[in-house]
Amino acid sequence: MTTLCIVGLGLMGGSLALALKQRAADPGDVDAGDDGFFRLARVTAVARRPATLQAALAAGAIAAGTTDLAEGVRDADVVILAAPVRTILGLLPEVGRHARPGALILDMGSSKQEICRAMAELPAGVQPVGGHPMCGKEKAGFEAADADLYRNRAFVLCPLERTSPDALARATALAAAVGARPLQLDPARHDRAVAAISHLPYAVAASLVTAVDAHGDDTAWILASSGFRDTSRLAASDVDMMLDTLLTNRADVLEWLDHFAAELSSLRETLSDGDEPALRARLERARARRAGLVFP
Amino acid sequence: MTTLCIVGLGLMGGSLALALKQRAADPGDVDAGDDGFFRLARVTAVARRPATLQAALAAGAIAAGTTDLAEGVRDADVVILAAPVRTILGLLPEVGRHARPGALILDMGSSKQEICRAMAELPAGVQPVGGHPMCGKEKAGFEAADADLYRNRAFVLCPLERTSPDALARATALAAAVGARPLQLDPARHDRAVAAISHLPYAVAASLVTAVDAHGDDTAWILASSGFRDTSRLAASDVDMMLDTLLTNRADVLEWLDHFAAELSSLRETLSDGDEPALRARLERARARRAGLVFP
Repeated sequence: MTTLCIVGLGLMGGSLALALKQRAADPGDVDAGDDGFFRLARVTAVARRPATLQAALAAGAIAAGTTDLAEGVRDADVVILAAPVRTILGLLPEVGRHARPGALILDMGSSKQEICRAMAELPAGVQPVGGHPMCGKEKAGFEAADADLYRNRAFVLCPLERTSPDALARATALAAAVGARPLQLDPARHDRAVAAISHLPYAVAASLVTAVDAHGDDTAWILASSGFRDTSRLAASDVDMMLDTLLTNRADVLEWLDHFAAELSSLRETLSDGDEPALRARLERARARRAGLVFP
Repeated sequence: MTTLCIVGLGLMGGSLALALKQRAADPGDVDAGDDGFFRLARVTAVARRPATLQAALAAGAIAAGTTDLAEGVRDADVVILAAPVRTILGLLPEVGRHARPGALILDMGSSKQEICRAMAELPAGVQPVGGHPMCGKEKAGFEAADADLYRNRAFVLCPLERTSPDALARATALAAAVGARPLQLDPARHDRAVAAISHLPYAVAASLVTAVDAHGDDTAWILASSGFRDTSRLAASDVDMMLDTLLTNRADVLEWLDHFAAELSSLRETLSDGDEPALRARLERARARRAGLVFP
């Protein structure tokens, strides 16, 4: 029997465990190709807090759990690292020391270049693949975990040069087994794209909240409705996760902050000038583009 | 029998008509106080296109409709102006010429200072009240209308000095009749607050979309998920409405754009410096504030 060990039972790791449980119970509901490997897997976990392991055991999400990384990793054919990026970077050397020869080591961190660089230093025997599922919630922790979190979402996979075709196939099957759409991507390309569509929107949402908080009064908060709710939602994201994400993808995020600030400044100038045709053209371009987007 | 004429059957006007129809059918489902006035009202409408009137008649949203403003307004005890702000400003003089003595004239435009100034110039016989329900959708037109659009939302009312207590009471009862929470507010205070929680988020969402469109590639759009979807949603708003809103609330919007740009620039500097404690404090402040907000 294959053993899969999830390191970190927060929103992402917990949801992965629940999705695998759902998949095992109803193997026919996702077209995952040859994923018998994961249908039959024994799912274990490593968590910092015993209470988290107890909650996951009680939910039937895992078969066994431990707070000891070496113990959890030792018997696993697949190790999933589900933690903030810098926690993953800190865990990798020890995971490499204790992992079985041939074990697949897949992470789910939000930036990929630093992690893939660190994965290249792992012992030759293990099989690393960088991963990033494009899903999340503004709530953190196992109590927010959801078996359907991955459904229909892109699951980016960044194989290293050293990654064997078999290991990549196993990572691909795992992504499919939780209902996601596996998508192979170069780490640099991934980091630049997610800086645009995830890290920049987070920085924008956080700045929107702090700006209104600093300069607004109660009337603003009383009137805030669905528009503000949605535009600012990402500001409630887990700070540990996002801090790691921004700091490990700093160059891309800074570049996108500059692109965005230039757009906003240009809109400001057009409005300040009262240049109605230019303002209309700009707003119409944004409207048409946004209305044409389809989200999973 | 009271006659209420809705001028403009787009999302807002159409939803108001549907909400009044629902209210008439089930008068017990909203605690609207003494709103018998609206339960028994005959709802008519003025629209530019005969097809819109036909759709509203077919949906049972209105009892009668006309494309002629004077004809629609002449017999109404209450006139609701449901259009973009500058359209309302253009309509007001003619509405004032044709309205009955004593008629309540209530608008639903997104900025209030210019409209309330124009309302002050109406003939002495009519009773103007500025209004702004805090709801909307990124879809426009009668086909997007929804009887529940106003439910539990704040409905700002800006009475003028000349407005009689009876007219204000009627406007308040109307807001309550469609399920909204009436809230009396000074026009300047309203405009400053909505610039922060509605017009700024719209400008931010539009700039986010145009920035990614100008500098991103297909990978960004392929990876875009729920975070980008929500942060950018307002960019798909009706351009005619938002153009009028920004241009008639220009000073407030410019001021909020500056507050926001300063916050974003400060976040950028903290990230660029790699000042982790300051970055964490900023993100944590935004998280705590956003997580503590409750939306209707």
